[in-house]
Formats: sequence, C-alpha cells, structure tokens
Amino acid sequence: MLTELKREAYEANIALPREGLINLTFGNASAIDRAQGIFAIKPSGVAYADLTAEDMVLIDLDGKQVDGSMRPSSDTPTHRRLFLAFESIGGVVHTHSSHATSFAQAGREIPIFGTTHADYFFGPIPVTRKMTAAEIGDGAYEWETGNVIVERFAALDPADFPAVLVNRHAPFTWGATVAKAVEVAVAVECIAQMALMSLQLEPTLPAIEPELLHKHFKRKHGPGAYYGQTDSGPTC
Amino acid sequence: MLTELKREAYEANIALPREGLINLTFGNASAIDRAQGIFAIKPSGVAYADLTAEDMVLIDLDGKQVDGSMRPSSDTPTHRRLFLAFESIGGVVHTHSSHATSFAQAGREIPIFGTTHADYFFGPIPVTRKMTAAEIGDGAYEWETGNVIVERFAALDPADFPAVLVNRHAPFTWGATVAKAVEVAVAVECIAQMALMSLQLEPTLPAIEPELLHKHFKRKHGPGAYYGQTDSGPTC
Amino acid sequence: MLTELKREAYEANIALPREGLINLTFGNASAIDRAQGIFAIKPSGVAYADLTAEDMVLIDLDGKQVDGSMRPSSDTPTHRRLFLAFESIGGVVHTHSSHATSFAQAGREIPIFGTTHADYFFGPIPVTRKMTAAEIGDGAYEWETGNVIVERFAALDPADFPAVLVNRHAPFTWGATVAKAVEVAVAVECIAQMALMSLQLEPTLPAIEPELLHKHFKRKHGPGAYYGQTDSGPTC
Amino acid sequence: MLTELKREAYEANIALPREGLINLTFGNASAIDRAQGIFAIKPSGVAYADLTAEDMVLIDLDGKQVDGSMRPSSDTPTHRRLFLAFESIGGVVHTHSSHATSFAQAGREIPIFGTTHADYFFGPIPVTRKMTAAEIGDGAYEWETGNVIVERFAALDPADFPAVLVNRHAPFTWGATVAKAVEVAVAVECIAQMALMSLQLEPTLPAIEPELLHKHFKRKHGPGAYYGQTDSGPTC
Repeated sequence: MLTELKREAYEANIALPREGLINLTFGNASAIDRAQGIFAIKPSGVAYADLTAEDMVLIDLDGKQVDGSMRPSSDTPTHRRLFLAFESIGGVVHTHSSHATSFAQAGREIPIFGTTHADYFFGPIPVTRKMTAAEIGDGAYEWETGNVIVERFAALDPADFPAVLVNRHAPFTWGATVAKAVEVAVAVECIAQMALMSLQLEPTLPAIEPELLHKHFKRKHGPGAYYGQTDSGPTC
Repeated sequence: MLTELKREAYEANIALPREGLINLTFGNASAIDRAQGIFAIKPSGVAYADLTAEDMVLIDLDGKQVDGSMRPSSDTPTHRRLFLAFESIGGVVHTHSSHATSFAQAGREIPIFGTTHADYFFGPIPVTRKMTAAEIGDGAYEWETGNVIVERFAALDPADFPAVLVNRHAPFTWGATVAKAVEVAVAVECIAQMALMSLQLEPTLPAIEPELLHKHFKRKHGPGAYYGQTDSGPTC
Repeated sequence: MLTELKREAYEANIALPREGLINLTFGNASAIDRAQGIFAIKPSGVAYADLTAEDMVLIDLDGKQVDGSMRPSSDTPTHRRLFLAFESIGGVVHTHSSHATSFAQAGREIPIFGTTHADYFFGPIPVTRKMTAAEIGDGAYEWETGNVIVERFAALDPADFPAVLVNRHAPFTWGATVAKAVEVAVAVECIAQMALMSLQLEPTLPAIEPELLHKHFKRKHGPGAYYGQTDSGPTC
Repeated sequence: MLTELKREAYEANIALPREGLINLTFGNASAIDRAQGIFAIKPSGVAYADLTAEDMVLIDLDGKQVDGSMRPSSDTPTHRRLFLAFESIGGVVHTHSSHATSFAQAGREIPIFGTTHADYFFGPIPVTRKMTAAEIGDGAYEWETGNVIVERFAALDPADFPAVLVNRHAPFTWGATVAKAVEVAVAVECIAQMALMSLQLEPTLPAIEPELLHKHFKRKHGPGAYYGQTDSGPTC
C-alpha cells in the first residue's frame, strides 16, 4: 500500500544521519499523499541502520494508523497538525541538529545575516513561544507542539518560512516534497552555525538589508525566479 | 569463559572511536554478568584497531583478575566501584569526549536547556567535587575516583542520571547494558555541545521548565513510557 | 569543444563538496581559456553528485553562451567580471564555506594573525563594502557583485590577495588555475576558523608582525621563493 | 639507503592528514637514525596523496642532503635544530592543526585544565617568544625558529613537555619515535580544543591541582608508571 510514498519517506529518514543532522534515533521525516490524505512516517525509536521502506507507518489525517505493524514516531501528531494547517506542503522533517537546536534551547530566532539564509527564508527563522504546563501535560503534548507552531505562523506564509524552532526543543522543516524538507533541514543547520559565529564576531550585528533579502529570496522562489534549471532548487 | 560478556564489552569498546568519542587509546567500556559477579573490561593502553573480543579482561567484584593475560584498564577500580554501588547497571563507559570533558575540566555541571537533554536525564548532568590530595595520592586513585562519584549520587538515582562528570577529568556513563551506556555517552557529548552553544547565545539561560523536563523524561522512562517499540530507547 | 577546459572546471566543482566547502548546490567554479576568451562554468542548481564534465557551460567574455544546453550558474556574471578585471587569473571559485561566510556576514575582513594566513595572503583578507539598493535591484545584481569586488581591489594586487569576502554574502577566490583557486578556498576556510578562535582567546589581538608576514608570503611567492619543488604551492 | 627510516617517516607524514591535523600540504614529519646521525623528512610542497616512502629526503645533522632527488621540507632546519638540542628524541612533527594553531597565533600557552592534558604534559604547553626581525630576516629563518624553541626549553625537559607552540606560527611535537610524535600531535590538538571550550565556560579557570597533574603524568611516564601493557602509551 502506497509503496512509493513509503519509499520517499524512507529515503528522507535515512538521509538525516547521512547529512549529520541526527545522532542515535532522534528525528523523523514524513511524506504525504494529498489525494488520499495519508502520510508515511518513521516508526518510533527504530535505529536508522535497521530501517526499511516497508517499516514506514501509514497514518491518515484523522490520526488513524492505516498500515504498518509498528508504532509510529511519537512525534506523529505534530506532523499531522502541520499537514492539516499547511496545505501546500508535501513533507515534514524533524531533527535535533546541534546548532539549530542550540538556538531553540535558548528560545532565540535565527537572525538573518546573509544571502545563504535569504536563499531559503524571507526573514529570520521563527521560534515558537514556550508551551504552557497545560499544553505539555494534557495528554496531547505532541499535538499541542503542532499547535504552537501553527499559532506562530498566524501571520507567516509557510512557503516563505519553511522551518520553525520549537522553543526549548528543536527544529521542524517542511517543503513541497519531503526531499525538499530534508534540504531545508541541512540549510537550517548551516545557517544556524554561521549565525552563531557571526554573533561571536559582532554581538549586535543587524539583519541583512531588505533589498538583498528580497533579491536573494525572489531569485529562487516564485514568479521571476531564475536560479537552477527549473526555477526551484537552492542551497547553503 | 564468559565469551558473550567479552563480546558485549568488546563491541562497546570499539563503538567509542567509531562514534567520535575517543582519540588514541583513551576511554574504556565494561559489561557485567551480575549472576557471576564478574565484569569484562578493556585491557590497558591497547589501540582500538588491534583489539579483539578475546583481549577483554575478566575481573570479579573483589577486584581479582579471573581471566585474560593482559593488564586491565587502569580505570578498572572506578568501574568496579560503580558496579558495587549502582546495583541496577549492567555496563559502564568512560570517554574523554571533547565537549563533555570541557565542562568537567571547568568543574561545571551540564545545565539542562532542552528536550534532547530531558530525554536522557531528569535534571542537570552532575559533576563531582574535586578530589583531595589524599584521595589522589593514597595509592588507590582510581578507586577513590569511584568513591567521589558514589558520594555525588548520595541523593540521586543512577537510573535518572545515567552519567557524571568527574571534576578536572571527564565523563563516566552507565546503563542497563553496556550498549545503553555507549548510547548515553553519545548523548552526553551532543548535549554538552548544545549546552555550550546555548550558553554562548544566552549566558544566563535558565533551566528547562519542570513540566517539560518531566514530560520528556517520563515519556521514555518508567511506567507510562510510550516512546519506541518497547518502552526503552531514546536519542539525541 | 574545449573538452579539457570543461574537465578542469568539472574537477574543481566536484572538489568543493569533497573538501567540505559546500553543502547542497551552493558554490561554483570556473576555468578560463585566455587564448579563446572563453570560460567553463557549472550549470545552475545541479546537484554535485549528478554533474558531469560535459555539463559545464561555455561562456565568452561578452557573456554569450557558446556551448552547453543548460543554464549557467546564476553567479556567472560575477565570474566574468573577475576574469575581465584580473587578467592574470585562470580560475574562480565561489563557496559559502561556513567560517569564511561568518566573517562575510559580519562585514569583517579576516585579520592576519599567523603564518598560515601569511603563506597565502599579503595582509588581511579583504571584505567589500555593502552593495547599494540600486546595485542589488538594477537587474544586473551578479555583475554588480563583481563590480564591488573590483572596486575593493583598486589598490590591491589580486596575486597578493587571491580572495575576497563579499559583504553579507560569502568568499570568492581565484588563482593562476582553477585548481589553485580551490586550494585557496580551502585555505581561506581554515584561516577563517583559526582567526575566529584566536579572537575568542584575545579579542584585541594585533596583526602579525610585518617582517613575519613578508617572510612567509615571499618564501612562497615571486622571485626568491624557495618553498615546494617548483616555487609554487603552499598550504594551510 | 635507510629504507626502514624512510618508511617510518613516510608513515608518520601520511598519518597527519588522516588524523585531521593537516590541510593541503602544510605540515611535515621526520625520523632520525641516531647511530648514523641522519634523519628522513618529507620533500617540500608535495601533496600527501602523491607521496611515497622513497620520496623521503635524507639529511645529516650538519644539514647536508645525503639522499633523495627532491628538495626537503622548507622546515628542515627547524627539525635539525631540535634533533641536535633534544638528544633523546627520535622524531619531530609539525602541523598547523586548527585549535593548537589558534593558541599559537594568539601567543598563548595552552593552560592545563584536566587529566587529558596531564597524561601527556607535566604542565602547560609552552609557547615561544616572538621572533625578532633579525631572526626572521637573516636568511636562516627556519634554523632560528628552532633556536627560539630551544631557548624556551632552557629550563624545561623535552620529555616532560613533548610539544611547543611557535608564536604566531603553529605547534611542533616530538617523541622517542616519530609515531609517538604523531600521537602527541593528535593529543595537542584535542587538548587545545578542550582548553578553548573550558575557557569559554570559565574565562578565569585556574590550572589543574598539582597533585592531580603529578598523579596523571607519573602514572604514564617514568619509574612507577602503570598504564598500558608496557609502561608507555597514553591518549586523549
């Protein structure tokens, strides 16, 4: 069932340790089939080396497990919340990549200091507010994690800002495909590393100038984009 | 004799350089057979590339070498002290992994800033007091190293805090199995790296909120755990 | 057409991720045939793993594409501007290597603190002024990027300073050959890393003494050089 | 001629990039045959990937090239000076490893903060004074580099301190064999990294306590050593 979707999710999951974004079993990726309203996600706590495409668990948008014998990732409700709220996205990735997570732990957005960042984001990488004790303890912690992300995006377009830092936790990224969400996860980590070092050099460094932000983001996204062979694809 | 135990200890020892936790020959892992009261540990100063499972040295809980032709690790008395004091543990790992050791050298506990840390520890990663000149010089330095760890855990449960930093020295970790102790050693190093970077961003960053600490630790440990396929297994 | 030139450019491009200078598709290298006034450059947005020598795009010094079916790198006008202004260079490399880019984002030159730096540069690694809104938005952004570099070199010899940081952006390097430009890109990244750490140790560290700068640069460059087998070739 | 000596020097040289201590062609290792008063050293500016054992150049203690068709490393006079002054050493290694070089650039000794350091050094890793303009410019720069090292060791035993930082330059290490000098070079780099991070945590961190320094150094060196199988061999 949905063999190709499982394979996409599987490829994204095993890319995470290969790209240095993940240690041990922390992190997960999911891919959605919008026509069927079903997404494929990593099973919980399985070592990446042991994972197969068949292990991917299928979940529908109501949260019902429709295929797979293993428990899905404990973060599944967060993925589901994002797929419901951000209708244009096709994949979600969660990592604890070290530099991005350091910003998340400190509750700091990642300021936008250069064109590498502007190639992917139309401003700073946002951070959520802290979750309340009620949200953490009400039995739907992972769903509420999705809710604070969605709340943070009330006035933001997820296509302009394809990642968020969950306060005290770590980054989530997304994209038109799960492969794109992996690419953004790589970009977020290297953007975070460079922001940290630029701050070490200049603790009060101001953000990139608006014209340069606009230029770099728009040469890669939307009408008038001229980067790459097909008006997609950027980098870090 | 105890071939399987030696193999477990061997696998854990060779995992240490592979995981980037060890340079040269520094570090060691041991696994205990509680029924027989015997543990297997790395021989002293042997290069990891030359190590075989048969090289593992067997020591009983009185400190007597019961098998193996090579000298055991010079840190053997520390391992023995921990096996005696912490009766639920099945393995001990010692590394000089760079970020964790930087905290140990500074005599600083690793503060708990995020969920990655809370997935493994029920609070900050403790640091021992400094050892006295008498403890260092009395001819049982490595045993006394174990004693200051045990002293630090007078009011701590080693299952809630599966690692310690020995002041001026480096981390020791443990777990139900030696494989788990290796996993914790990986986690401690990445937790230390992220704590250092979060402190760079916010030198006065407060600890994680108690509800979030409780939630993350308890979803992976003890009754009510729901992470993984078998209520074990976390990550970083 | 110009098969050997394409191969040189190709080898330089694929060296960039191998040397750890590039993530994803960001960065590019070009090599020029001065006799024909044509340079070979990477196609835009193609993954390094998929690249072949035949994919290299040929561009003449007027900016006309003379061979290749794919679009050239979006940074092609910057390369062309440099080939026109710096007549002695045979190759150009652009990366977003993390430490060098951190200086570029902060708008800081890389100060010269040691002999590693002096082996490659006859002073600090220069940074351009920020680009104006007009230069960014006038439809020739990448050409104007070349212009601010050339402006910065009004009083500098590109042979004495084989790299620049574009403010808010990232480094460009060059050399007699594109292979040499790759070598300089490696050197710039490690020089930047060491400068950042030396600044952490001594925030007001002064530049290297003039005699030592002169000695190290001149033992590797120009008349009297005595390093290597052929009076070229340095390092980091 | 001296095939085995060349092989030892060769193995040490190619270990340097493999251990991450070297980029490009910077760095070199040499091994001496004390009976013959001849040492083998890397040829100048040759890429490590192209190096063979036969390429090693043989030099006698008067500085005369006695074998090999290539020029020796430009740092050969520094190696020779050290072999003449430190009669117990059998090998010398020079790297520009990044963390150690950052201390050298800042003119700072590496303070001794923990047992990893104490396993190798009987105190801080010394730094030379700056070289004078006369020493740099008198035509024997590399020999004078050796002289400032020897001057720094007027009151230090090179067996207790098997490395030095040349001010504004980078580390040199040595040992009873060139393989041991490589091991020390690895240790110096990781000690430097951890010292830098401990200083970030505690800018005024005092040195390790004398008893602990004595204990760790002496359990691995000299009479009464009990580490390893043969009273040699430590780590980081």
